[in-house]
Amino acid sequence: MFVPPLPQAYAVHYISGMASPKDDYLIRPDPLDPRLTERVKGIDQTGASIETAVTVERALTIFLNAQEIVTAMTIGDHPEYLALGYLLNQNMLKPDDVVTDVDYDEELSVVVVRTKRKTNYEKKLKKKVQTSGCAQGTVFGDLMEALENVSLPEAELRTSWLYMLAHKINTTPSLYLEAGAIHGCVLAVKDRPLVYMEDVGRHNAVDKIAGWMFKHQVGAADKIFYTTGRLTSEMVIKTVRMGIPILISRSGFTAWGVELARKANLTLIGRARGKRFVALAGVDRIVFDQDLAYVEDESAKHRRKAAVHDE
Amino acid sequence: MFVPPLPQAYAVHYISGMASPKDDYLIRPDPLDPRLTERVKGIDQTGASIETAVTVERALTIFLNAQEIVTAMTIGDHPEYLALGYLLNQNMLKPDDVVTDVDYDEELSVVVVRTKRKTNYEKKLKKKVQTSGCAQGTVFGDLMEALENVSLPEAELRTSWLYMLAHKINTTPSLYLEAGAIHGCVLAVKDRPLVYMEDVGRHNAVDKIAGWMFKHQVGAADKIFYTTGRLTSEMVIKTVRMGIPILISRSGFTAWGVELARKANLTLIGRARGKRFVALAGVDRIVFDQDLAYVEDESAKHRRKAAVHDE
Repeated sequence: MFVPPLPQAYAVHYISGMASPKDDYLIRPDPLDPRLTERVKGIDQTGASIETAVTVERALTIFLNAQEIVTAMTIGDHPEYLALGYLLNQNMLKPDDVVTDVDYDEELSVVVVRTKRKTNYEKKLKKKVQTSGCAQGTVFGDLMEALENVSLPEAELRTSWLYMLAHKINTTPSLYLEAGAIHGCVLAVKDRPLVYMEDVGRHNAVDKIAGWMFKHQVGAADKIFYTTGRLTSEMVIKTVRMGIPILISRSGFTAWGVELARKANLTLIGRARGKRFVALAGVDRIVFDQDLAYVEDESAKHRRKAAVHDE
Repeated sequence: MFVPPLPQAYAVHYISGMASPKDDYLIRPDPLDPRLTERVKGIDQTGASIETAVTVERALTIFLNAQEIVTAMTIGDHPEYLALGYLLNQNMLKPDDVVTDVDYDEELSVVVVRTKRKTNYEKKLKKKVQTSGCAQGTVFGDLMEALENVSLPEAELRTSWLYMLAHKINTTPSLYLEAGAIHGCVLAVKDRPLVYMEDVGRHNAVDKIAGWMFKHQVGAADKIFYTTGRLTSEMVIKTVRMGIPILISRSGFTAWGVELARKANLTLIGRARGKRFVALAGVDRIVFDQDLAYVEDESAKHRRKAAVHDE
């Protein structure tokens, strides 16, 4: 298999959590990190005692300079990336902002992002209340505006990449396989997964990738975004906002997600399992180079074990 | 199979969307309702044109008396129940409040709940902003307090009911089976599903059931709550708040969800698929009356088609 060389931006050695050079990933899940799961006792269907791993969720409070912005529930593995990505995706941090410091206090569960530019989002925080109370609603006002002005780059998605990516991601050890009840998002280039983030909230996994891209100034034009979650309007808006032209999911679509993807000319592929997928927007970027006779239908082995509803 | 007689509270004829008497359900999904899905065109993995159904999501703005409370994204099938349940689960509507009117304006996508008691939640809306920005966070402050004072009733969950419920729910025609990308919640008594609600957001499906219970003054002590989604802290808190002693899911657990369920003595069962399940709290309510030799492992036929990550 041809493995593309590392683009300059990835050929860095200081990325925290960076995997070994032999490994395709720059960041991948660490299912053995004892802080991310808890062993709990219970019983099974026969009444027998069992012990099993469950995913943790922790409160993390994000400050931008002196202002408390939000308390997010997260597994807590990359608080700095989460804070940067959250603020970016809320349009409180601008792509050209100079971040002077990101301080994480594990004991207080607080992360503070400091910028050269003075910030005050009192009005914005107030506005959120008046229009919505759920994660999806809170971001819409601003993000919709962002969508209007965006023009996604030309790009190519070979179906051979898609199948290889899905195979690699599904066979990567993860918290999902260890404890379930978690979402995963992957930033990829061609058939190579670069950064695989998991979190209890799908929006957190996305935000952590956005934060990673911002911190390391990674370009979006040649990237592919893969998510285990549904292709909702929120997911589409965030992908477009990040400037990534291609979004792939194992899960299904919502009608508004499809409509927004078409408006933004985002390539939107869902229900990607085994041989099958459905593309409902931006289909011109797809190059059908894979001989389907060589792709297996999803085997029980590769099927996600907590195989149920998507988010 | 023994079907328990209808308790008095259900023997009503005016419930909107009520199913036929032959049917076990009082309310079940209506996957053929043209307002709930949209047909969209796209291509499949071979490049061939296809048409498929996708779930809609609509903005619905909820008012309590003169005050705008929230804009929720919903499939829009039961706006009145959603509004009542949302306000109840946010502790803005009290269980003993007299609701004088629920007005739904389809054109404006607005639902107004009017109460005898005067309400003003300006402070509460303000407080939400300062502490959180995601759906989970917004409800915690108050709901945690509610958890402290609750005492769940004694109750019994026979494993034969659990398997029968799962079988019935998985074989009920639903938007999930039609279009995917949706959550389901079911209120049940013994082995009988009563109310099956679906929505793009899991919290909406729960809230619609809470609204239905409030409207029809249905008791919670003998009920079982089934969800397709994960057993997070939010899900546990809402179930406890509704007074339901048993919560079952096909999906997995989070550590905080387990901790809260133990604190509240909620019976918490997850990963319920085919023969298998895991109980991590309130296990004393479980009666193992089912001979497992007669339970099938989950067959491909019953496995949810968009079988992926849970929310």
